[in-house]
Amino acid sequence: MAFHETIQELPSLQGSSSFFDTGTVIALCVFFALLCVCIIIGHLLEENRWANESITALLLGLCAGVVVLLISKGKSSKILVFNEDLFFLYLLPPIIFNAGFQVKKKQFFKNFTTILMFGVFGTVISFCLASLGAFYLIKKIGVTSLQTKDYLAIGAIFSATDSVCTLQVLNQDETPFLYSVVFGEGVVNDATSIVLFNAVQTLDFNNVDTLTALKLVGNFLYLFVTSTLLGIVAGLLSAFIIKMLYFGRHSTDREVALVMIMAYLSYMLAELLNLSGILTIFFCGIVMSHYTWHNVTESSRRTTKHGFATISFIAETFIFLYVGMDALDIDKWKGSHASPGTYIAVSSTLLALVLIGRAAFVFPLANIKNFVKRRDSTRIEFRQQFIMWWAGLMRGAVTIALSYNQFSGSENTSPDSALMITCTIIVVLFSTVVFGSITKPLIETVMLRHAKPLTSDVTDNQSLEDLRILFLENGDPSDQGNGSSSNNQPAQRASSLRLLISNPTTTVHYFWRKFDDKFMRPVFGGRGFVPYVPSSPTGEADEAS
Amino acid sequence: MAFHETIQELPSLQGSSSFFDTGTVIALCVFFALLCVCIIIGHLLEENRWANESITALLLGLCAGVVVLLISKGKSSKILVFNEDLFFLYLLPPIIFNAGFQVKKKQFFKNFTTILMFGVFGTVISFCLASLGAFYLIKKIGVTSLQTKDYLAIGAIFSATDSVCTLQVLNQDETPFLYSVVFGEGVVNDATSIVLFNAVQTLDFNNVDTLTALKLVGNFLYLFVTSTLLGIVAGLLSAFIIKMLYFGRHSTDREVALVMIMAYLSYMLAELLNLSGILTIFFCGIVMSHYTWHNVTESSRRTTKHGFATISFIAETFIFLYVGMDALDIDKWKGSHASPGTYIAVSSTLLALVLIGRAAFVFPLANIKNFVKRRDSTRIEFRQQFIMWWAGLMRGAVTIALSYNQFSGSENTSPDSALMITCTIIVVLFSTVVFGSITKPLIETVMLRHAKPLTSDVTDNQSLEDLRILFLENGDPSDQGNGSSSNNQPAQRASSLRLLISNPTTTVHYFWRKFDDKFMRPVFGGRGFVPYVPSSPTGEADEAS
Repeated sequence: MAFHETIQELPSLQGSSSFFDTGTVIALCVFFALLCVCIIIGHLLEENRWANESITALLLGLCAGVVVLLISKGKSSKILVFNEDLFFLYLLPPIIFNAGFQVKKKQFFKNFTTILMFGVFGTVISFCLASLGAFYLIKKIGVTSLQTKDYLAIGAIFSATDSVCTLQVLNQDETPFLYSVVFGEGVVNDATSIVLFNAVQTLDFNNVDTLTALKLVGNFLYLFVTSTLLGIVAGLLSAFIIKMLYFGRHSTDREVALVMIMAYLSYMLAELLNLSGILTIFFCGIVMSHYTWHNVTESSRRTTKHGFATISFIAETFIFLYVGMDALDIDKWKGSHASPGTYIAVSSTLLALVLIGRAAFVFPLANIKNFVKRRDSTRIEFRQQFIMWWAGLMRGAVTIALSYNQFSGSENTSPDSALMITCTIIVVLFSTVVFGSITKPLIETVMLRHAKPLTSDVTDNQSLEDLRILFLENGDPSDQGNGSSSNNQPAQRASSLRLLISNPTTTVHYFWRKFDDKFMRPVFGGRGFVPYVPSSPTGEADEAS
Repeated sequence: MAFHETIQELPSLQGSSSFFDTGTVIALCVFFALLCVCIIIGHLLEENRWANESITALLLGLCAGVVVLLISKGKSSKILVFNEDLFFLYLLPPIIFNAGFQVKKKQFFKNFTTILMFGVFGTVISFCLASLGAFYLIKKIGVTSLQTKDYLAIGAIFSATDSVCTLQVLNQDETPFLYSVVFGEGVVNDATSIVLFNAVQTLDFNNVDTLTALKLVGNFLYLFVTSTLLGIVAGLLSAFIIKMLYFGRHSTDREVALVMIMAYLSYMLAELLNLSGILTIFFCGIVMSHYTWHNVTESSRRTTKHGFATISFIAETFIFLYVGMDALDIDKWKGSHASPGTYIAVSSTLLALVLIGRAAFVFPLANIKNFVKRRDSTRIEFRQQFIMWWAGLMRGAVTIALSYNQFSGSENTSPDSALMITCTIIVVLFSTVVFGSITKPLIETVMLRHAKPLTSDVTDNQSLEDLRILFLENGDPSDQGNGSSSNNQPAQRASSLRLLISNPTTTVHYFWRKFDDKFMRPVFGGRGFVPYVPSSPTGEADEAS
C-alpha cells in the first residue's frame, strides 16, 4: 500500500524495468535486506540482556533513515511513508492473532477480571489524566493553536499501550501472571482506546451530559461484547467446518489456508462492522487454538504453530523497522518551526504524563483488588505492581498511527500539529528503546532475586484440585493420599466451600470445563476429540499430509 | 496495492470507520470470504475428475463479478482493478518459489536440456508464429489500428504459458517426466517471454539487422545466466548463514523467517537489476531445498514444507479469483465498440494461434530430441508429446498482466486496444476452464490405459546404478548379486562406457554428486551434514523449537 508513495528523490537509481515502479522495488529491497540484518543481529544478541529484536529494528531503521537522508541531500528520509492501512490491515492482525493463538488460556481467563479492570478503567483513568495534563501543561509551553478536541485526542493517543513490545519484553513461561495481565490489558486497552478516540472525533464536547456519558459506556459494552462474540463465532465456525468436512483427508495445506483466511476474515468483518478487529481476532485465535487446532492433522498443527509465530515475528520486526525509518520525517520536523527547547519540553511532558497516567491506575487498582480478594495467594505484590506499571509504559505503532490520523489530515497541517507528531515519535522512540531495554534486566532483578515460585500458579492448582474433589460425582477422597484417616473430611469440605466463594474464577473454570466437555467439544472438536467421520478412512488423516 | 482503487460505486455501504477506506475493507471481506468458499468447494470437488480449485475460483470470481455488476446497476463489475504490481510483487513469487522448493530436483535436472530447448526455442517459435498469424489474420477481421509493435506484443503475450495452472493439472508423483518438462518449460518460458516482450517495447523494428538479433540472443543469455546465478547465490547464502550461526539453537521462527525473507529478497533484487525474478526465485527455491532445508530444525522443516505450500496455494486461488472477477471489465467491453462476431472471430483466431503455435514446436522438437538420442528409454513417445502439447495450452494471469501492460496504457485507449484486452480475457477464461478441466481426464485416458510404468524413470535408475559401479573407487561388483562368476565383468564395463557416452546427463549428475559431497555440503550443509557448532549445545537444536 505504502510502497506507491515511495522515493522519487533518487532519480539516479531509476532503471528501465518495464513492469514495476522502480521506487517500489528499491523500497522493498531495502526493507527486506534490513529485515534480514535485523533477524541476524537479533539472533546474535539473543544472549544479551539489554537488547532485543524491536530495539535492533528501531535503531537499524533510524540508521537507514539517516543514510537515505544523506543520499537525498536532506530532502527526504523516507523510503516509505507511514501508512495506517498497511499497519492496521496487514501487520497488526497476524501479531494479535498469534498472541491469541499462543496465549496460555488458563492464565488469561483466570486473570480475566483483573485484565478487564486494568484494560477498561485503567485506560479511562490514563486517558483523563493525560488529556487534563496536556491541556494545562502543553499550553504553558507555548503551544496554543490546539483545540479541546486535540487535547482529548492526545489523551487517547498516549493511553494506547504497545502490546507488540510487551510481547517481546515479557516472557510467558517465566512470568505467566504478569504476561497475561499486561498483555491482556493491552488487547482490551486497544478496544477502549479506539472507542475513546472515535468518541473524541464524533462527540460534540460543548454539551456533554450524563446521557452522552451513558451512551459512551453503552457503546463500549456493545463494542466489547459484539467484537468478542464475532471472534468466537468465527473460531467455532472454522472448527466446525474442518471437523465436519475433514480436510486432513485430502490436504494439510487446505486446512492451514482455511484457518488463516477465516481468522483474517473475522478481523476484516469486525472492521467492516466498525467493531474492534483486534479484540475479534484475539478471541478468534483463542477459540481456534482450543478447538480448531485439535481438529487438524499433526503436520498442520506444527505448521500453524510455527508458521503463525513466524509471520507474527516478521510483522513485529517490520513495524519497528518502519517506525524507526519513519522517525526522521523531515517535512514534519521542518514544519513544526519549534526550537529544540520546545521539543524537549513537550516530549518530556508527554512522557511524564504517560508515566503518571499509568501509575495512577496500576497501583490503586491493584490495591483495590488486593483489598477485595484478601486471600494471600492472589494478592498482587508491590514488586509485581511495579513491573505491571513499567511493562506497560512502552508506546508503539498504534500511538504513531493514531497520532498521524489526528494531526496529519488535510485540514490539519499547522506547525503545532507537526510538533505533536514529531513529539509522539520522540516519545515512542524513547519509551521503546530506553524503557524496553531496561525492562528485561529490571524483571530479572526484581523478580528473580525473590527466587520462590510465583504464588498464583501453585495455589491455583491446589484450589482447582480441591474443587474437583468437591464436585466429582463419584469422588473418592482417598485419592488425596491421606490413607484411611477420614476424620478431616468435613473440615476439608468446609474449606472447599470457602474456596468456592472466595475464588469464583476457578469455579467458573470448573463449570466451563464440564460444559466444554459435554456440549462444545463433541460438536467443535478439541483435545481428545479427534475428528472421526464414519464413512471416511480415519487412518489416512495423518498420512495424507 | 489494488485495494485503493476500489468500488466507489457502492455509496450505500460507505460506513464511518475512522481508520480505513470502507471500500478497501469491503473488497477484502468479499475476497477472503470467496477464498474460503473456494477452498471448501475445492475440497468437496477433490474426487471430481473435471473440476479443480483454479476453475472453481475462476467461475466463482465470474459469479461475484456478475453480482457486483448487478448491484452497481451495470456501472462496474470490479471490486478490484487488476493490478500488475499486486500480481508480480506479491502473488507470483511465493508460487514460483514453492514450485522450486518442492520440485523433484533429480527429474528436473535430468530433463534440463529438454526443458531449455522447449522453453527457449519453443517460445521463440511460438512467438514468431503467433505474431505472424496475428499480423495477417486479425487485419482481415477488420482490426486495423494496431501497429507492428502491437502484433509482436501479441506474439509475446500469447507465448507466455501459465505455469500456475500447469502445477494444478499435472501431478508430480503420477507423471514426473511430464510435470518436470512442462513446468520447467513454463519457468524458462517466462524468462524468454519477458526478454521478447521487453525487446518488442524497446527495439526499433524499422531497421532490424543481424547485429540486433545477436544482441537479443546475448541479452537472453545474460538474463538467463545472471538470474540463475543470483538465485543460486541467494540460496547458498541462506544455507551458509543458517549453518554458521546455528539459528535453531534459539528459535525456529527466526530460521523460517530468514528463509522466507531471503527468498523474497532474491526476487526483488532480480527485479531491481532488471533480471527475471521468476528464474531467480525458482533456482533459489531449488538450492534452498537442497541445502538450507537440511540445516534447520525438524520443526522448521515441516513448517517450511507445509507453510510455503499453503501460501502458494492461497496465492494461486487468489489469482484465479482475481482473473475471474476482473473478466467483466465493463469499461473495456464497452470501449471496444465491436460486434459479437468480431469478438468471436478475434478470440478464435488467437486461440487457434495458441494451439498451432504450441504444436509447431512441441512435436518437431520432441522428434528432433528422439532422433539425437536414439536410446529407446529416453524417447518421448507420441502420447507424451500430445500431453506436453495439451498441458501447455492454458494461458493465465501472466498473459493478462502483459496484455494490460501493452494495451491499457495512457496513450493506448483505442477501441482496438480494448478489443485486444477483452479477447485476451476470453482466451484466458476459455483455455483455463475448458482445456484445464479436460487435461486431468485426458492424462488419465492417454497415460493410464498403457499401464506400464513410465520408461524414463526405471531405465535411469538402472544406468545410474551402472555408473556407480563404474566409478566406485573400491567398487565391489559382487554387490550385483551374481555371486562368484566374474567372467562378465569386461562386457559390463564396456556397456557402462557406452552408457557414459550415450547418457551424458547421468554422468553429469554423478560428477555433481561427487562435487557436492566433497566441496559444497561441508560448507553449506545438506542431507547428512547436520549443523554442528562445537561450542554450542547440539542437543538443544530440536528441543529449542
